[in-house]
Amino acid sequence: MTHPSLPLYDAMSTQRAVRRLREDPIPDDVLKRLLQAGAWAPSGGNLQPWRVIVVRDDQRKQQLAQLYQAQWAVFAAQYQKGLARLTGEALAKQERILASGDYLSEHFASAPVVLVYCFNPKLMAITDSDLDRPSVVGGGSVYPAIQNTMLACVSEGIGCTLTTLLCLEEAAMKEILEIPKDWHTCAAVPIGYPQGKGHGPITRRAVEEQCFADRFGDPLVFQVTPP
Amino acid sequence: MTHPSLPLYDAMSTQRAVRRLREDPIPDDVLKRLLQAGAWAPSGGNLQPWRVIVVRDDQRKQQLAQLYQAQWAVFAAQYQKGLARLTGEALAKQERILASGDYLSEHFASAPVVLVYCFNPKLMAITDSDLDRPSVVGGGSVYPAIQNTMLACVSEGIGCTLTTLLCLEEAAMKEILEIPKDWHTCAAVPIGYPQGKGHGPITRRAVEEQCFADRFGDPLVFQVTPP
Repeated sequence: MTHPSLPLYDAMSTQRAVRRLREDPIPDDVLKRLLQAGAWAPSGGNLQPWRVIVVRDDQRKQQLAQLYQAQWAVFAAQYQKGLARLTGEALAKQERILASGDYLSEHFASAPVVLVYCFNPKLMAITDSDLDRPSVVGGGSVYPAIQNTMLACVSEGIGCTLTTLLCLEEAAMKEILEIPKDWHTCAAVPIGYPQGKGHGPITRRAVEEQCFADRFGDPLVFQVTPP
Repeated sequence: MTHPSLPLYDAMSTQRAVRRLREDPIPDDVLKRLLQAGAWAPSGGNLQPWRVIVVRDDQRKQQLAQLYQAQWAVFAAQYQKGLARLTGEALAKQERILASGDYLSEHFASAPVVLVYCFNPKLMAITDSDLDRPSVVGGGSVYPAIQNTMLACVSEGIGCTLTTLLCLEEAAMKEILEIPKDWHTCAAVPIGYPQGKGHGPITRRAVEEQCFADRFGDPLVFQVTPP
């Protein structure tokens, strides 16, 4: 018998990126449930080739925040340039996202917990490593665990967002968190109780636009019986 | 108001790899909920840089099955070699997994639906592409969607398992499913109602073994209040 949690579809349909977090600590029993959710996730050969460093120490969070801020500044400047052609509500929306990213960057060290995910490629069968395009398959044994923990955050009323900018500073990160040679980093997830409403309505493309029937590009038409 | 679904933690704590599937079709309303769950998942910049091909056509399933069977034969032979040192229950367990993999391979085309996931790296900010280790970050914008759909399968009583062996045959796969140049494949998930009990108890390392405190290797001790 597991702890009470939200119905699956309710959690999924309200999973927003929540970047404005309060500094209040996350109780250990809640934190344990978040991490347990991740540990339940499937992985290739059930090897669970990932670990998560639960960073709560102020000094280490500050060091990560400095790295993050430098990378965010570069990223945000590029992003801002991309908005030049937008106007009206489309522009306003992108500016809100950017402002929320700025906030996260400035307050990165104020999140009560930053979850830093590590993986060991030697424990993975990476079937797309020899292809002439970026490899992603190793992620198939880590990101399901991260997604489980993020869905658990929704259920527990905790804000979170998956960031990968710190991979650009992997060497420095490995030094700060004393990560051994064979392990690498793939995500940093700041978590904390939300300042605002937290999770809620999301904007996604219609399911019909994400799915094809039998070949790429053919529309999938659902024959759904009206309720 | 979303459709009724399992509590999150109950779905996660019973998500097994289910490889023995019945041939019965999956009703369209159920299939739509599975795919909607995936479409709700977060992705980098909310770009949803993935598509899923819902393969139900017998001829295309047979073609995929042939590719899968050839790769599985190679993989299974290697896996079998790795069992040489095992005895007793440990050996028996691995042999059960292998037998179940053999079954999936032989019956790959009998699954009512094979979900083939595609991604476009041009829609991804891959922050670990220049590192001297396998890249995984692109997977952070696809595998959460796949995990959502697989958790939805648990809730809907549908068996599933994430396979990545077909990436070894990406060129052939792209031809069979008419996937354009800029798109690539990262998973094939055969789904169907289970022959046996389907989802249920899982074996995972204890959460304490997956998590560290503040630096890699330091045990995380939870101060949990007894209920």
